[in-house]
Amino acid sequence: MSLDVIILAAGQGSRMKSKKPKVLHGIGGKPMVQHVIDCAQELDTPRIHVVVGHGAEQVRDALAGQALEFALQAEQLGTGHAVAQALAGTTPDGISLVLYGDVPLTRSETLRQLVEIAGQDKLGLLTVKLSDPTGYGRIIRDDAGQVVAIVEHKDASAAQREVNEVNTGILALPTRLLADWLPRLSSNNAQGEYYLTDVIAMAADQAVRIEAIQPEHEQEVQGVNNRLQQAELERWYQLREAQRLMHNGVTLLDPSRLDVRGSLSAGFDVVIDINCVFEGRVVLGNDVSIGPNCHIKDAVIGDGCQIRANSVIDQAQLQENCDIGPFARLRPGTELAAGVKVGNFVETKKARIGEGSKVNHLSYVGDALLGSDVNVGAGTITCNYDGVNKSQTEIGDGAFIGSNSALVAPVKVGAGATVGAGSTITRDVAEAQLSVARGKQRNLDNWPRPLKRES
Amino acid sequence: MSLDVIILAAGQGSRMKSKKPKVLHGIGGKPMVQHVIDCAQELDTPRIHVVVGHGAEQVRDALAGQALEFALQAEQLGTGHAVAQALAGTTPDGISLVLYGDVPLTRSETLRQLVEIAGQDKLGLLTVKLSDPTGYGRIIRDDAGQVVAIVEHKDASAAQREVNEVNTGILALPTRLLADWLPRLSSNNAQGEYYLTDVIAMAADQAVRIEAIQPEHEQEVQGVNNRLQQAELERWYQLREAQRLMHNGVTLLDPSRLDVRGSLSAGFDVVIDINCVFEGRVVLGNDVSIGPNCHIKDAVIGDGCQIRANSVIDQAQLQENCDIGPFARLRPGTELAAGVKVGNFVETKKARIGEGSKVNHLSYVGDALLGSDVNVGAGTITCNYDGVNKSQTEIGDGAFIGSNSALVAPVKVGAGATVGAGSTITRDVAEAQLSVARGKQRNLDNWPRPLKRES
Amino acid sequence: MSLDVIILAAGQGSRMKSKKPKVLHGIGGKPMVQHVIDCAQELDTPRIHVVVGHGAEQVRDALAGQALEFALQAEQLGTGHAVAQALAGTTPDGISLVLYGDVPLTRSETLRQLVEIAGQDKLGLLTVKLSDPTGYGRIIRDDAGQVVAIVEHKDASAAQREVNEVNTGILALPTRLLADWLPRLSSNNAQGEYYLTDVIAMAADQAVRIEAIQPEHEQEVQGVNNRLQQAELERWYQLREAQRLMHNGVTLLDPSRLDVRGSLSAGFDVVIDINCVFEGRVVLGNDVSIGPNCHIKDAVIGDGCQIRANSVIDQAQLQENCDIGPFARLRPGTELAAGVKVGNFVETKKARIGEGSKVNHLSYVGDALLGSDVNVGAGTITCNYDGVNKSQTEIGDGAFIGSNSALVAPVKVGAGATVGAGSTITRDVAEAQLSVARGKQRNLDNWPRPLKRES
Repeated sequence: MSLDVIILAAGQGSRMKSKKPKVLHGIGGKPMVQHVIDCAQELDTPRIHVVVGHGAEQVRDALAGQALEFALQAEQLGTGHAVAQALAGTTPDGISLVLYGDVPLTRSETLRQLVEIAGQDKLGLLTVKLSDPTGYGRIIRDDAGQVVAIVEHKDASAAQREVNEVNTGILALPTRLLADWLPRLSSNNAQGEYYLTDVIAMAADQAVRIEAIQPEHEQEVQGVNNRLQQAELERWYQLREAQRLMHNGVTLLDPSRLDVRGSLSAGFDVVIDINCVFEGRVVLGNDVSIGPNCHIKDAVIGDGCQIRANSVIDQAQLQENCDIGPFARLRPGTELAAGVKVGNFVETKKARIGEGSKVNHLSYVGDALLGSDVNVGAGTITCNYDGVNKSQTEIGDGAFIGSNSALVAPVKVGAGATVGAGSTITRDVAEAQLSVARGKQRNLDNWPRPLKRES
Repeated sequence: MSLDVIILAAGQGSRMKSKKPKVLHGIGGKPMVQHVIDCAQELDTPRIHVVVGHGAEQVRDALAGQALEFALQAEQLGTGHAVAQALAGTTPDGISLVLYGDVPLTRSETLRQLVEIAGQDKLGLLTVKLSDPTGYGRIIRDDAGQVVAIVEHKDASAAQREVNEVNTGILALPTRLLADWLPRLSSNNAQGEYYLTDVIAMAADQAVRIEAIQPEHEQEVQGVNNRLQQAELERWYQLREAQRLMHNGVTLLDPSRLDVRGSLSAGFDVVIDINCVFEGRVVLGNDVSIGPNCHIKDAVIGDGCQIRANSVIDQAQLQENCDIGPFARLRPGTELAAGVKVGNFVETKKARIGEGSKVNHLSYVGDALLGSDVNVGAGTITCNYDGVNKSQTEIGDGAFIGSNSALVAPVKVGAGATVGAGSTITRDVAEAQLSVARGKQRNLDNWPRPLKRES
Repeated sequence: MSLDVIILAAGQGSRMKSKKPKVLHGIGGKPMVQHVIDCAQELDTPRIHVVVGHGAEQVRDALAGQALEFALQAEQLGTGHAVAQALAGTTPDGISLVLYGDVPLTRSETLRQLVEIAGQDKLGLLTVKLSDPTGYGRIIRDDAGQVVAIVEHKDASAAQREVNEVNTGILALPTRLLADWLPRLSSNNAQGEYYLTDVIAMAADQAVRIEAIQPEHEQEVQGVNNRLQQAELERWYQLREAQRLMHNGVTLLDPSRLDVRGSLSAGFDVVIDINCVFEGRVVLGNDVSIGPNCHIKDAVIGDGCQIRANSVIDQAQLQENCDIGPFARLRPGTELAAGVKVGNFVETKKARIGEGSKVNHLSYVGDALLGSDVNVGAGTITCNYDGVNKSQTEIGDGAFIGSNSALVAPVKVGAGATVGAGSTITRDVAEAQLSVARGKQRNLDNWPRPLKRES
């Protein structure tokens, strides 16, 4: 049976105090509404409708390029009204599943159950038991345990208020029932809004069976209305990521100090020290060790690599057994062959570095192609920019670049060549040559040290 | 009615194991006794008396320059004795409020209630309900719920020990009653001390009404006797700061990994990543993003600035849209115009840098004045110090400083000038000039590489 | 009475998903089995037997050089079988204590009690009360409270399942009883294994008194079967370290963000900011302050030293009042006299630096001997490596090294000498000399700036 998923994403979220529409705020580095879409995509060939309103254009732009249909809710007249905007795009004899762009972490396993229930001509309702249900609509069941109504907190009797099973708003049902009921919703209430929840009463009236299920975790149905709730879900999300990694055999020195904002995969015997942040797609091979306070984004790190404390890596590829940091920064376009060493206070960018080469200290290697077994001395700078153009530096296998050298690109240093310390190299150096470019040393006696100026 | 606040700050705090008097230990970067003073200052024109004893001079020095009266408690003979030392300075027909220098986080709203009670010729007492009241003085109430006594734990009957409302020691009362009762306290007890608590019994005896109120949070009345308790209050304080910021619309990636030691204000859509520390007065504009592990002190950071991972900023002013770090260090006197970029492994100090200028890599810019659109190449050093004097470097608009250059101050590089890579500049460079100061490159064939020494 | 400690360390630990045997995984930077050994060593002259099996060679290698006897359990046939492998090496009239290499954090005080019980010809059993005992063997006591049996969860009656006191497997008993009972264990059970636990029933049968004691902390008997349990124990271990330090008077800004992997000792009034990691043996003097995100290993840091944010220290010795970082890296062989300052983006290695000397910015000082009151300018590099050999740089008292200099070792700069900024020094500089080695500055008019290449 065809499935239409209607995601409500029109709310303002004024308590976020943000120029950005609420549903675009992120959990784990991904907009909340995208979490909902991705979860829906795991269902069986859904058609996904996103109802936008506040910041409609921003939401559309953020979600561009995906197979989504957008419906505009020009005025915010309640959840029932919002769903109604998407109704025209649905398949009348299919099933509709209603989700919320600010309830980001529902699992697809949970939704699948709701869809199955709806497939049996019933209304599938997601409910949750809360230790403090104050303020929520209570689920009222008859003696046989069947759901017969939802009573809003303010309308609930004392006995009803004792019920701790509450409505989450997430439901699935045959679309023809939805189409029948939506036009009959009334806005005759304190808020003057059309509430989707009222379809429950209609279902009960028409003897449509209501089947309620519960999520495995309470956080699956937690909505985000302010930054505190966002932070709570963020931490829960991160804890789950940590557990997933640990179950796969990763040692986390502190699971509560890990942040994964994207996808992190790891091989055997990977150790991740405290306080690391991973963004985008990061792949760690076997026996990789990541030191404390590292920030790694969109990188592939080969077997046996060691990334030491306080390193920052972005869009880099490292083959096996590289030794990086501490205080290294690998920028986009860094490609390191096996056994490369990049040490402290070194920045690389668009740099391909061959096997076993070393850039150990205080250097900038940008727009550069280094062979294998090159030694780049401390304080070496590839001068890749003349103010308008970027140029390339090439260094051959086994070359030795003395400390505090400047290599003014475009320039080539041949294989086995040596550059003397403190040189500024502006012309190519041939294979095996020694190149020196520095002033002659003069030692002067009797030189008076500067005197302290009067201030 | 005039208000005298008496803050007891004479204790040694031997369990802190510190040379520093206990009340000078900090929460949120501020001495505990200063928290108490600042809270008292929020009341209606209080006169504040600080009773000092252990480390009296250190405490006086730490609090110098504030409108405070100090009373010396030469011997530590109990809380009653301590309050008595300050009595001479109070206004007889006013109200006295007794606070403790090691109970730092009471809210002024709580104290205001006590003062109001005392203004009605009653004794206002702050009590708290504890899940485990063992060891504390229990609040005994009559059938009408009126407080009639405080019974110390060791003197309490089994029934009284069931009471979980306990005395905090914080109270307010008409000063004439205090003056009447203090001389009548007895030290005839196990410790041989004069306990302020005994005035409760006197009040009951004299039918002075005792009205007890409770703080909103238990931590408001938590005292600090050792580093564990200090750490507990520190974390609670920080969590409140985090909540305050989130309520104002700040995204905190992890509220439990934020430290604010001073005042932090933030505009709209500010994002603060994990593990940041803020000290002193820090102002963040709108759309500011602070990366992980940053340490920022006494700084103003303009709209749209991005501070990347692992940056350290102290006494700096940044106008809008600056891009800083990772691994940048802005030291005191750094003033950046709009759109300035300071990159990795760069240190600035007393540096005014004009709009759109860039210092992207591995540089030291100190005692320097840079115009707009200057490009400072990697590895550039302003040589501002000759061993005794500091001198200034000036670089005009649009100048280009080649990599690995040293600018020996005092020196000026004119607008639009270019300094060749690897140059040491000791004389001024005029507008639009090219200046080069480096040795001539010589390439030598047949140079034998060094041989491994025998060891 | 002689004591044999039998440590079972033969298990595979497949849920760790690791090539490394489970007992070699660490807590607080030390293999779990080493924790057990170290704890056993605190008892009265024990002989320690380690029963190895899976990864036997790796375990033996990891524990090499200690007074241990190894027994090989070639096949994993249960705990009783494992203990039997070590029996031959025990003293028949002594006491045996059975421990587990994957239960790392038992306290020796707890074990001492078990040994004492066994010394009275009883069986000493360590049990623990769990809020959820599901799956564990229940401790069955008679009406007098004597332990009479252990009933496995699957065999327990409903009433027995209500018992929340469970078996930990840790026990001590006269070795002659163990020798009597072990051969009588049966593998006639679902797993086909010989269970040590069955000796409890034998003891009850033979009217050997069983005395059960409980550990002070539940974590003392917690075993590690996967990375989640490892992480849980790691955090508990770290929290205890934090509490120990705080009780000794250390200020920890956040006790839950401290990692000690080895031994950390600290003097009076030490402050450790958030997120620091200590490894190996670290000694902090009085009044030492450690900034956030520091990583310190095998170092001695003298009174009054200040280590600023994001510094990394390994195998270094600092005398009093040194000022280090932020972003400093002190590598092995760094020895700093009193009052030395090492600033941002500075790396030292095998460097002895005299009193009051300063290396404030962006420098590499390796294989170097510096006198007192030396000033090393920003961007200075000691060129200690020619591609094959390391050589030494010596700088005399009071010398001034201008910024952006390279000192090509072996080289000496005499006391009071000055090196001009931007110099590459290849020959010795005598006392009080000025040495300059740089190109002559040429300022050229009418130099055309590079044009943007067409791309």
